[in-house]
Amino acid sequence: MNKVGIVGYGITPFTKEDAKIESALLDSTKEIFKNNPEIVQKEIDAVLVSTNNNSKYLSSVVSEMAGIQPKIAHNIESLCNSGTNSIVSAYSYIASGLADLVLISGAERYDSPGQILQWDNSRGEYKHPIFWASIFAKSYKREYSITEEDLAVVSVKNHKHAKENPNALSNKTYSIEDVLNSKKLTDDLRLLDCSRPCTGSASIILGSEEKVKKLTKEPVWISGIGQKTISAGFTKNISLNSMESTKVAGQTALKMAQKETKDIDVAEIHDAFTVCEPMALESIGFTKNGNGMNMIKELHDTNDFRINPRGGLIGTGHPLGATGIAQTVEITQQLQSNANKRQVDNSNVGLVHNMSAAATSSTVLVLEK
Amino acid sequence: MNKVGIVGYGITPFTKEDAKIESALLDSTKEIFKNNPEIVQKEIDAVLVSTNNNSKYLSSVVSEMAGIQPKIAHNIESLCNSGTNSIVSAYSYIASGLADLVLISGAERYDSPGQILQWDNSRGEYKHPIFWASIFAKSYKREYSITEEDLAVVSVKNHKHAKENPNALSNKTYSIEDVLNSKKLTDDLRLLDCSRPCTGSASIILGSEEKVKKLTKEPVWISGIGQKTISAGFTKNISLNSMESTKVAGQTALKMAQKETKDIDVAEIHDAFTVCEPMALESIGFTKNGNGMNMIKELHDTNDFRINPRGGLIGTGHPLGATGIAQTVEITQQLQSNANKRQVDNSNVGLVHNMSAAATSSTVLVLEK
Repeated sequence: MNKVGIVGYGITPFTKEDAKIESALLDSTKEIFKNNPEIVQKEIDAVLVSTNNNSKYLSSVVSEMAGIQPKIAHNIESLCNSGTNSIVSAYSYIASGLADLVLISGAERYDSPGQILQWDNSRGEYKHPIFWASIFAKSYKREYSITEEDLAVVSVKNHKHAKENPNALSNKTYSIEDVLNSKKLTDDLRLLDCSRPCTGSASIILGSEEKVKKLTKEPVWISGIGQKTISAGFTKNISLNSMESTKVAGQTALKMAQKETKDIDVAEIHDAFTVCEPMALESIGFTKNGNGMNMIKELHDTNDFRINPRGGLIGTGHPLGATGIAQTVEITQQLQSNANKRQVDNSNVGLVHNMSAAATSSTVLVLEK
Repeated sequence: MNKVGIVGYGITPFTKEDAKIESALLDSTKEIFKNNPEIVQKEIDAVLVSTNNNSKYLSSVVSEMAGIQPKIAHNIESLCNSGTNSIVSAYSYIASGLADLVLISGAERYDSPGQILQWDNSRGEYKHPIFWASIFAKSYKREYSITEEDLAVVSVKNHKHAKENPNALSNKTYSIEDVLNSKKLTDDLRLLDCSRPCTGSASIILGSEEKVKKLTKEPVWISGIGQKTISAGFTKNISLNSMESTKVAGQTALKMAQKETKDIDVAEIHDAFTVCEPMALESIGFTKNGNGMNMIKELHDTNDFRINPRGGLIGTGHPLGATGIAQTVEITQQLQSNANKRQVDNSNVGLVHNMSAAATSSTVLVLEK
């Protein structure tokens, strides 16, 4: 299989602005070409757009607006992990030899139609993601004697990280009391436990080994890929205290990369809600079941940025189609030692965890210098 | 690169029914497992859904309903060539080694939101596809002294073929006079010049060489792939008398398959409107520019089914996300000598041409026994 790496990336601030989806996609795409003048539009073989927006033919629209005439162009949607699904598709196009350079552009508007899964009748009237997150929180807290004060640390930590991320939606820091005093949304979740939908865009170009070596001085390679879909409906989850799809995706990605969790220096974890971060850390195997919050508290107390350095979804905002790409851009910046105040020292191997809809599907990527 | 072939397919009648998109997708998916009991759900590595429908997470929904827990699952959209874009993605997953068995399920409802490209401001108020087709027809007729009686032959021929296709939307035959007397929609197009939106579904499973040999006695291989996107906006087309994206896609696919047009025994051509069939035949190189209608008339007069044996989009109906898959299913049936009354004798090599939005993007596939 051909080696695949990252050639360039573009990212713009996540906001609450009423931007057109086409403009959002183009903004981060233009950033790539601005920052990497050696990448020539006419050499791009494929343009994949990652979004839940209902507009059609967006990959051809972005191609035309960016001056690209690709071979392959289409839109990819899988709710919140559309971004990493697109990255894996790009990977397969390159690894198979059908393409050498692939642009992936992800964007969402704050009012994305992907926030509510209409189909999942197992949720009854409770179709908003906050309801599965509440059930996860109630179950996880009960199973491992975790309190809401404990979970609040995730929000405090990730907002602290986001403060150092100029593209994050939030630039405020909060105390545990602030989280506990924020608006109560359900029995088990408050406003500051939740990531917020927003308008945002992130783009990345993947390339074959030859292209990566030609076009960048700081190669970052995708060495591990794991994906798993358990179901669409929430109630098919085997457990409410762990994430089966994340577990399988994590094992697959680490095996492919011939790595263990102890080899991972920095990771992006899909903290759509506070409870997701300890659950995902446990399911990937960073720590044993029930110990996720202890791990997170230690990281927070020692000001260690290695889990969710950009501020997670909670601090950075969650523009669905852009999130998985923005996570991958962050790990790329970390491995290239370009993360400024968020930099995790000695980052050689990174991991991205991106999931959808109550962890019914997950993607895990391993990236290496 | 790993060899990729077709393991099984499912197709259901195209209708004007008010079916749910989930049910439509499942209908043709179930056909595959019913007709190929040796294919086991748990061995499916990826589920790709091809549609313009606005529902989200449909690949996970179909997976759950069909009893599949895939690694890879997402939705793919590129207007009218979503189907072949999905097939090429599946191909790349298998060729790269990330998957061995991939289900592609395509479906659309008669009221698909993909029928009108809102973005293309170059069309002014004239956003319905009939307007670009009218401009193509006017230009092509003028350039090559073609009459509306000439173009009507495409509709007569393809309706005749569709009469032998039990899944086609139309089961009526028409005379040239019928076409000329059908409702005038624009200066250059009448109702029977147009393919019709409908509710329909088609599914196919692609596999690695090992899986194909294990699971089917009549292997059909994908030996050529060509894709090209020129633009999104209609007015960026270089010519109004030929299809540049089709030309490039055709050349690429034939080169990859090491074939020439004379080697093609049977072909599916994207006849969204009558004028598209001669234009596409010329752009792919089946005949010289301006001679497409002579070729079509000869085929019609000799009752030769080798171009659009299932009845084309005009006779079969055009459920956008299903079309490219249904075309590929037809060529598979032809190469397996399973096309009943539509069978083209000695079909060893077939071609699929599927395009979007005024031929701004095209896919061409070459299939071989």
